[in-house]
Amino acid sequence: MTDLSRCAIHTMTHKPWSLAQCCERFAAASIGGISVWRNTVAPEEGGVGLDEAVNIIEASGLAVPAYVRGGFFPAFAPEDRQKAIDHNKVMLDEAAALGADQVVLVVGAVPGMTLAEARKHTADGIAACLDHAEAVGVKLSIEPLHPMYAGDKSCVNRMAEARAICEQLQSMWLGIAVDVYHVWWDPDLDREIELAGQQGTLFGFHVCDWRLETRHMLTDRGLMGDGCIDIPSIRAKVEAAGFQGFNEVEVFSEEYWAMDQEQYLKLIVERYQSST
Amino acid sequence: MTDLSRCAIHTMTHKPWSLAQCCERFAAASIGGISVWRNTVAPEEGGVGLDEAVNIIEASGLAVPAYVRGGFFPAFAPEDRQKAIDHNKVMLDEAAALGADQVVLVVGAVPGMTLAEARKHTADGIAACLDHAEAVGVKLSIEPLHPMYAGDKSCVNRMAEARAICEQLQSMWLGIAVDVYHVWWDPDLDREIELAGQQGTLFGFHVCDWRLETRHMLTDRGLMGDGCIDIPSIRAKVEAAGFQGFNEVEVFSEEYWAMDQEQYLKLIVERYQSST
Repeated sequence: MTDLSRCAIHTMTHKPWSLAQCCERFAAASIGGISVWRNTVAPEEGGVGLDEAVNIIEASGLAVPAYVRGGFFPAFAPEDRQKAIDHNKVMLDEAAALGADQVVLVVGAVPGMTLAEARKHTADGIAACLDHAEAVGVKLSIEPLHPMYAGDKSCVNRMAEARAICEQLQSMWLGIAVDVYHVWWDPDLDREIELAGQQGTLFGFHVCDWRLETRHMLTDRGLMGDGCIDIPSIRAKVEAAGFQGFNEVEVFSEEYWAMDQEQYLKLIVERYQSST
Repeated sequence: MTDLSRCAIHTMTHKPWSLAQCCERFAAASIGGISVWRNTVAPEEGGVGLDEAVNIIEASGLAVPAYVRGGFFPAFAPEDRQKAIDHNKVMLDEAAALGADQVVLVVGAVPGMTLAEARKHTADGIAACLDHAEAVGVKLSIEPLHPMYAGDKSCVNRMAEARAICEQLQSMWLGIAVDVYHVWWDPDLDREIELAGQQGTLFGFHVCDWRLETRHMLTDRGLMGDGCIDIPSIRAKVEAAGFQGFNEVEVFSEEYWAMDQEQYLKLIVERYQSST
């Protein structure tokens, strides 16, 4: 049986569960970590509040590889870009309180703005947050999103564009979160993982699967083994490149959210073990 | 009013219409061309038969930029790869009879086979068809498909991989069909279009749009202006690179198929004119 100490699960994976339920069940199942989505924390998004969240997580003994999700930097109006920067700094503060290793960035995209321009806004926005990241001791990780999200969610759709921003900003507080769902198809993936390893930017590794007959672009991800992604092969590459962090299970799925969540957690553990 | 002599419409765009209806209505609207899907031709797919199709199209006076769609080369079993090659040769014969300029290739992908391996099968399959293409005087164009189709439809998801196959096989009968839907997000697009222009491989240009809230991965494309693709900018680039062929309107959309098709054709013409 594969050890689960390097397995983390995103709260969004178990959307029907509260933060407290997630923590209790994950810990009981010997899962090592929990990646926390802000909707479980921030009162304005329906969360329990930061102090309560800190207490719940500390009591569970779970590690927190990631706080999700910052970003959304590009905007036509300068004041909106500043708002995004301010919000990301708040998320860094919250992440620090939660003991999170990194804030994951879904960087954003704006219809009507070229993706190249949006990437400039993104680099500028991240640059404005790096001192704060260092001050609170929390890393920022750019998560390249699948090209099907280039319309309004992310102007960074390959590892290459995430790397370009990392190379431009040159900070040990900035790296990349590699989610197999978004990057598995990329012909440059092997080379980019190798480069990220050399540059010390492999901050996160997310696992799930690509269903062949995807029914919804946002909420029909598969659990490891449901689809066509060769997860062991990609994991072997990130590990060969030096990655030693958590394998974060991040699955948005109406189908799995509708399932009994205790059974689902058992299934996650099974699939995690058979895909490692 | 923009001249429609370089506008072509795919039969699949007007799926509810027969080949004869498409030809009659397109010609009446002064559209210059029709790109013909095999289901309107081949009796085994419900078509009118090749002779009848040839008669209908010749009588309409429409040009035929493309016959759609060949490809699907990768397969685990060698006999299946041979079947694909044989089928593509049949499509080349049919395309020649129809007076089509090119057969568009959706190259294929197989779950469980790496995309790199599938690209090798693709190059081998195309190589085996090139003499036949030359013999019948019909070109083959590789259509890179959006990465969201990498699971089971295409292992060529960027112009770069299509170019690699063209560079390997070095034939004036092999090129690339650029569909804005599939490539608009690609950070390398400008460079690849330029290279394709230099290499003489810009064989086709397809227009439609990417809806921000895409409801279905196959049948929810937008008509030009419905989405976020900057079509005039991409068109300007292919033209600057030397492309002088048809602008083929290829839209798969349950919503538009449900519309009155005469009204839809008027809308296509309007959107074509406002996007050029």
